Amino acid sequence: MSSDSLVPETRVLAIASHVVYGYVGNKMATLVMQLLGCDVAALNTVHFSNHTGYRQFKGTRSTAQEISDLYQGLCQSHLTDFDVMLSGYAPSAAAVEAVGAIGLDLQRQAESNPGSFFWVLDPVMGDQGRLYVNDDVVPAYKKIIHHADLILPNQFEAEVLSGIKITSLSTLAEAITAIHTTYSVPHVIITSVRISQFSSSPEATTDNLTVIGSTIKSDGSPRLFRVDVPALDCFFSGTGDMFAALTVARLREAIFAADSTLRSTKSWVSPDDVQATDLPLAKATVKVLASMHSVLERTLEARDAELCAAASATEEELSSSEEEKQKREYLRRTKAAEVRIVRNARFLREPDVEFQAQEWKKEDLPVGLQ
Amino acid sequence: MSSDSLVPETRVLAIASHVVYGYVGNKMATLVMQLLGCDVAALNTVHFSNHTGYRQFKGTRSTAQEISDLYQGLCQSHLTDFDVMLSGYAPSAAAVEAVGAIGLDLQRQAESNPGSFFWVLDPVMGDQGRLYVNDDVVPAYKKIIHHADLILPNQFEAEVLSGIKITSLSTLAEAITAIHTTYSVPHVIITSVRISQFSSSPEATTDNLTVIGSTIKSDGSPRLFRVDVPALDCFFSGTGDMFAALTVARLREAIFAADSTLRSTKSWVSPDDVQATDLPLAKATVKVLASMHSVLERTLEARDAELCAAASATEEELSSSEEEKQKREYLRRTKAAEVRIVRNARFLREPDVEFQAQEWKKEDLPVGLQ
Repeated sequence: MSSDSLVPETRVLAIASHVVYGYVGNKMATLVMQLLGCDVAALNTVHFSNHTGYRQFKGTRSTAQEISDLYQGLCQSHLTDFDVMLSGYAPSAAAVEAVGAIGLDLQRQAESNPGSFFWVLDPVMGDQGRLYVNDDVVPAYKKIIHHADLILPNQFEAEVLSGIKITSLSTLAEAITAIHTTYSVPHVIITSVRISQFSSSPEATTDNLTVIGSTIKSDGSPRLFRVDVPALDCFFSGTGDMFAALTVARLREAIFAADSTLRSTKSWVSPDDVQATDLPLAKATVKVLASMHSVLERTLEARDAELCAAASATEEELSSSEEEKQKREYLRRTKAAEVRIVRNARFLREPDVEFQAQEWKKEDLPVGLQ
Repeated sequence: MSSDSLVPETRVLAIASHVVYGYVGNKMATLVMQLLGCDVAALNTVHFSNHTGYRQFKGTRSTAQEISDLYQGLCQSHLTDFDVMLSGYAPSAAAVEAVGAIGLDLQRQAESNPGSFFWVLDPVMGDQGRLYVNDDVVPAYKKIIHHADLILPNQFEAEVLSGIKITSLSTLAEAITAIHTTYSVPHVIITSVRISQFSSSPEATTDNLTVIGSTIKSDGSPRLFRVDVPALDCFFSGTGDMFAALTVARLREAIFAADSTLRSTKSWVSPDDVQATDLPLAKATVKVLASMHSVLERTLEARDAELCAAASATEEELSSSEEEKQKREYLRRTKAAEVRIVRNARFLREPDVEFQAQEWKKEDLPVGLQ
């Protein structure tokens, strides 16, 4: 690896979950950002043996007080010169508030230097129509999101935050506009929308995942772009964290590549004459998705190879009940689907596929937004 | 980076401390092994804001029960197919015992496949003549070291374990022999001996750091090699963890490069006819030290640049007491000396300096060992 393939030097505070085994949360995000050249301070909000997709785990959650204490430890030794904060899963409403207070404090420290600090917030609340956090976490997020520079909800989280049920391209655009205006969040990316679910869509027959992003204009309107990538036939845990981490690194790179005044502009918001597909956010997103696609394709190959090579059943397994056999098989498949980051690091640094960002044309948008 | 610069696929369980900011313990070891291509499960024994060299920190220690629980979490989901365990700092005697029980359990799981599991133990107890753990940690280590395949004490820890005060090359050789025989540990490396401290040594005038290693022979005698590297004029935290992590990766690489029967030999002990300098342990050590030297040289440059560029004193600092100014300066210097891993990853993967392992000649050894 030459240092040319690294992004500009970036000091990140990453606040998310830790798992001993596998790659989700901070275990994923920290490594991904480090592989791209970011110096990462990792503040862990839980300490679990493995991700919850295994349906069983052991470990402990950090309290809000423990999260605040660790940050106070950084403050007292003057270790808070971060360029970016990436915040992900927090295990309670109080923990979300503690993370929010950290983001606010870092913003306060940076307020005399616009653009010197940027907060990427992944509002981890649920997926596929279901909350997997306590109900009180939702209002806690709604309070802190006002302060973030970029948020990365999935489709369900975008619905929760915007109050708009996303059933079409029009309602998707409405949800993003609502997030811009309700929360004053300058940048939004909605990760992994399956457009084919919208039966009215002409793309209904192709199985793509679509990522939709926008950077706000000065009049509060969105600049919408979309990137379509082929969907892979497997569920992988940690892809949201991978997306967020890659976005931190690639957005910073795109900001440095843009007009030099941009990086000293509050929240890195491009001037109004920058088109949607020319936004640093759009340029970052295509690189992020290229890396993810390559790594996940190779993960799928490695998963299939691992499942084929799986040791023949042990004597203990042969004598076990049907329920135990099914559980064992589920665990085996979950383990085999762990994302293969370490041996595929080169695809993070040098993505070798090309996706395109497309602008959403006015005719795609509902009448009120045209 | 091509995947050619990665070591053979290796699944590691790393048990050590975590710090939010900077690079020591598992924060250092996990990244270093990952950069070289190892898949690392990271079980953290403490969760601190920063390393203790700052003389202040906040955070929590894991209890022995929490460490055992996390391991039980791995066991219940069949996530324990590790090739190597690297164990470092544990915060209490009970925690050392818990780590020992994990090592023993992994050995038990692997006992029908000799060489399929290897335990590298860094007996973190103290340095420079001083224990920095409770007194009861020493006997706890003495109980578990019998089971390790390779231990990595520094000079002080080697003295504590062997009961031999190291004041000369002869006593150093005696200490290694005692560790081999007392604890049946097949591989030992004593990290960073400053030979110039031995006034009787002919090298007294040069300022080298010497690393001494040995793999036991079938008669219990040592095969001693030494590698001298120029000492750098700075104290860096986390270098022991960096050494240990690099050694895991490079030893595994050297074992795969050796006669194919070696990797299915218990504890990877080479046949008696393999000379000291041809040992996989010696080959690994020269690569490890080459990487470390390059990274630490660049860390020193970056430290000096950071200290030069340090912002002029703030108003708050100007009005502070002399004691406060000194504390602030100490914190600034400690931060500046954090090891620069992320931007120098290429020196880990492709070390570009050459050190030589030398065999200790019989005449170097005390009479009783000839």
